[in-house]
Amino acid sequence: MREFELIEWIKNRQQTSHSLTLGIGDDCATFTATAGRKVLVTADMLLEGSCFILAEAGAYAVGRKAMAVNLSDIAAMAGIPKYAFVSYALPKIGGSATAQELQRGLEDAAQEFSVVIAGGDTNSWEGKLAISITMIGEASGKPPVQRSGARPGDGIFVTGPLGGSILGHHLTFTPKVALALTIHQKYDIHSMIDLSDGLSRDLKHIAKASGAGFVLEHDLIPVTSAAKELALQSGNSATYHALHDGEDFELCFTLSPKESVLLAQDTAFEVFRIGTITADCQYLIQQESQLKELATLAYEHKIT
Amino acid sequence: MREFELIEWIKNRQQTSHSLTLGIGDDCATFTATAGRKVLVTADMLLEGSCFILAEAGAYAVGRKAMAVNLSDIAAMAGIPKYAFVSYALPKIGGSATAQELQRGLEDAAQEFSVVIAGGDTNSWEGKLAISITMIGEASGKPPVQRSGARPGDGIFVTGPLGGSILGHHLTFTPKVALALTIHQKYDIHSMIDLSDGLSRDLKHIAKASGAGFVLEHDLIPVTSAAKELALQSGNSATYHALHDGEDFELCFTLSPKESVLLAQDTAFEVFRIGTITADCQYLIQQESQLKELATLAYEHKIT
Repeated sequence: MREFELIEWIKNRQQTSHSLTLGIGDDCATFTATAGRKVLVTADMLLEGSCFILAEAGAYAVGRKAMAVNLSDIAAMAGIPKYAFVSYALPKIGGSATAQELQRGLEDAAQEFSVVIAGGDTNSWEGKLAISITMIGEASGKPPVQRSGARPGDGIFVTGPLGGSILGHHLTFTPKVALALTIHQKYDIHSMIDLSDGLSRDLKHIAKASGAGFVLEHDLIPVTSAAKELALQSGNSATYHALHDGEDFELCFTLSPKESVLLAQDTAFEVFRIGTITADCQYLIQQESQLKELATLAYEHKIT
Repeated sequence: MREFELIEWIKNRQQTSHSLTLGIGDDCATFTATAGRKVLVTADMLLEGSCFILAEAGAYAVGRKAMAVNLSDIAAMAGIPKYAFVSYALPKIGGSATAQELQRGLEDAAQEFSVVIAGGDTNSWEGKLAISITMIGEASGKPPVQRSGARPGDGIFVTGPLGGSILGHHLTFTPKVALALTIHQKYDIHSMIDLSDGLSRDLKHIAKASGAGFVLEHDLIPVTSAAKELALQSGNSATYHALHDGEDFELCFTLSPKESVLLAQDTAFEVFRIGTITADCQYLIQQESQLKELATLAYEHKIT
C-alpha cells in the first residue's frame, strides 16, 4: 500500500469511528474544555525490542497497550480520559499489515474507554515500530489527585494483586479508570500513582512528593499467581516480585485513617490495604514483627 | 550515563527552566484552559534517516525543528502555543550526547515562543532517533482559523517565498506564529494552512475542505534563492520548486476580496497575493494568459 493510501485509510477509520472529533483535517484538533475543570495531559512511547517484541505480542496487543498505559496515567489522577493523539513510525517492510492490526488495537481500547482518537502523525521508516501517544483527559467534579497529598497516618491501598506482569498481564491489563473515579467520588483520595515501575519505586515517588515515609506490611501485599510462578524460577519470593516487578498498572493510593477503615470494610470495592504513611522519611517494610528498610532495585539500562 | 540519570537531568532542566509548569512529577501534567477559548492540539513525529540525517543536521537543529513544525501547525490556525509534550527514543550508543544537544534545541525553540515543555517520555533503544511532540495551544480572542473557510473570490496569500527548502531552510525556519496572530487580529482570515507538503498539495487541502477551487497566478508566486539554485540542478523552473517542494513552513491563507485589497496595500505586513479562490472545484494556474490544471506530484513512499 502506498503511504498516503495507508494514512488515508487510517484517517478515514478515525473519522468514521469517531464522528464527534472536531478539527480532523485541520492543522490542529480543537476542543472546548469543561469550565472549572483541569485539563490533564500524559504522554507515553512504546518501542519495539525495548518495550515489546512485536512477533511475540502481535501488533493488536501493542496498540491496545499503547493506549492502556496512557489511560492508566489518567486513572492515576482520577481523571476522565477524552482524546488520544497517536503518532507512529512504521517499518517499511510489513508496515501495512502491522498498521492495520495496531489500529484495531488502538481503536478497541479507545472505544472501551470512550476516548476519541483525535489526531496524530503516521510515518514509515527503515527502523522498527515506535508508537507515541499523548492522551488528554479532564478532572472529574473533584480536583485531580496528585502524588504529593499523602499525610502521616494515611492508609496505603493497591487496587489488585501485584508481580509477575511480564508473564502476560503487562499486555492485557485493564487500566483502572472507572475504579479510580468511583472511589474518588465516594472517598477523598489524598495521593495516587499507577504502578508502572514497581510498587517499591512508585510508592517512594508518593512519599518523596509528600515529604513523608511509609511502613508496608509484608504479609498484606497481594501477590498474583504469576508472581508465584516467577518466584519458582527466580528463587525470590512472590512478595519480592510484587514489590519490585514493573508494569502491574494497578493503582496505589492513600486515604485518611478514618476513610481507610471505611474503605477496607466497603464491599463495593475490592482493594487491598498494604501499609501506612509515616511522618519520618523512611521507607520501611514490616515482616514477622521486624522492621526493615525497603530496597529499590536500580535500573540496568545504560546510555553512552 | 545511566538512563535514569539522563532522565533526571532532562526533568531537572525542564523543571528549572519552566517553573510555571504544573503537574511535573505527577502522572499527568495539568492546566486550566482559558474560559471561552478553544484548546488546539497538534502532533508531529520526526524520524532519523527518513525526516533528517542526524550526522548532517546535528541534534540541536533536530530538536529545534521538532518543536518548530508543531509551532507551525498552531500558527496555521492563528493559535497561541502553550505546552509541548516531548517523547523521544534515543539510540543507546551516542544517545547521551544526542539527548543533551536535542534538549538544547527543544528548549531554545520553546523559550523563543514562550512554550512550556510540560511533560513527555524519554526512552532509549537499539534503534535510531525518533522524536514525537504533541503541542497544545489555545485560540486567540477570535475562533481558530480552519481550512474549510475559503469562499469564492477570496484572495490567496503566502507569508514568504517558497521552494528549495531542502537546501537548509527546512531546518532553520521560523514558524509564523506571531505573523498569523497579528494578521488575524487586524483582518478576518477565512482559511489557513501551513505549507509542509508543498503549495500545490496544501492549497488543495484548503480548496477541498472549503468545497471550492482556485486560480494561481504563476508570475506572482514568490520564489526563494534556494528554489532558483535547485532549478539549475533539476532542470525544472524555480516556480516549479515553489509549487511542489515540501517543508517551506510558510502559511497560506485566504481573505475576503475587500480585505485582500487592504492587506496587499498594508505596509505592516510583507505577504504575497498569489491567486484567487473560485466557485468551481478546479485547481488552476494561469501563466502567460493560459489557464492550466495544476498537477500534484504523488508521494513515492511505499509500505508493504
